[in-house]
Amino acid sequence: MDEKLISKAVIRRLPRYYRYLGDLLDDGVERISSGELSNRMKVTASQIRQDLNNFGGFGQQGYGYNVRYLYAEIGKILGLNHTHNMIIVGAGNLGQALANYKSFENSGFKTVALFDVNPAVKGKKVRDIEIHMMNELSEFIPDHHVEIAALTLPKSEAVSVAEKLVDYGVKAIWNFAHTDLNLLLPEDVVVENVHLAESLMRLSYNLTTKKDSKVEEK
Amino acid sequence: MDEKLISKAVIRRLPRYYRYLGDLLDDGVERISSGELSNRMKVTASQIRQDLNNFGGFGQQGYGYNVRYLYAEIGKILGLNHTHNMIIVGAGNLGQALANYKSFENSGFKTVALFDVNPAVKGKKVRDIEIHMMNELSEFIPDHHVEIAALTLPKSEAVSVAEKLVDYGVKAIWNFAHTDLNLLLPEDVVVENVHLAESLMRLSYNLTTKKDSKVEEK
Repeated sequence: MDEKLISKAVIRRLPRYYRYLGDLLDDGVERISSGELSNRMKVTASQIRQDLNNFGGFGQQGYGYNVRYLYAEIGKILGLNHTHNMIIVGAGNLGQALANYKSFENSGFKTVALFDVNPAVKGKKVRDIEIHMMNELSEFIPDHHVEIAALTLPKSEAVSVAEKLVDYGVKAIWNFAHTDLNLLLPEDVVVENVHLAESLMRLSYNLTTKKDSKVEEK
Repeated sequence: MDEKLISKAVIRRLPRYYRYLGDLLDDGVERISSGELSNRMKVTASQIRQDLNNFGGFGQQGYGYNVRYLYAEIGKILGLNHTHNMIIVGAGNLGQALANYKSFENSGFKTVALFDVNPAVKGKKVRDIEIHMMNELSEFIPDHHVEIAALTLPKSEAVSVAEKLVDYGVKAIWNFAHTDLNLLLPEDVVVENVHLAESLMRLSYNLTTKKDSKVEEK
């Protein structure tokens, strides 16, 4: 199977399929038809068939999809069949919250350390993950084959710290600072921005539009 | 101006324009051309002109956009010109991290309380925001005109708690649990899901694809 042929739109939808298939496995469901999956996910059955056809013809007419096989295949495409060592830079509440998500480990993301500038938290642990000082980054990253850094720092520090992380060997940054880090780093660094404030604004837009339309309905 | 005529695609991009315009104001920039904005945002100038033309013709040829005016107009569309009272349900690390984002208040989102089931944290404060017990929700929500609830609870509790919040008068839920809450609540409830695990999987996909293509290049 050539992964290059799968469209970006399908790729964007894959994590959601992966989550639903994982939930089905947890519920002991081994086979599911596109119609049942459509009902659960509120995506049309034809969209599901089109999307999943990218992964070979294992959806047989009248027989449904093999949940475990499909889950594993999508996991491979997403790179979840390998362990990725991750560090969290910024051991504040958000950094600690991320360290507490045990479920990331089940998907292959192993948080091996947190880092902070505050000497008061040095050596403390979140779950079993130790907080290190920032000046240890240059040795820690190559020594522990760290691929991913979650960046939970204020915007003012995010860019300069990200540049250092990349110098030390980090390949991908999961950025929570309010800045488009992808535009500021070398092109070969993978960046995924999580803009919480923008998510809240979309919610506010939908809330406001709904209110306006209710007033009009009266 | 009729807000209904603005396409969904433009609406999706608005929070990002809003952020860049806010940064420009912070930097003391009062006017900007579509070309300069294009350079900063890495969006084509023609896309910017098309998008911002939705908000009237205040981009004059050779004169640029009035940053303050555009920022205010986009803020209005997004509903940021009103204060929205928000509660955070789940006072763990993630809930506390959200309570600590002072910047949300500048955009009109005022966190008025946190809620938790753990009696050990009752009455404690995050910044100046008090942690209440869950059994106070039914009175607190109408008394404090709470519109938005951020839900930072495990998936197993998210649905039943969300249903109660809606019964008590919450209009919008900012959901951090790993479930598509929008599919499980009445249609008139606004839901914005933040799926952190899916964001991490997109990062992993991009990391994996990049690695594969590097191997092929050799």
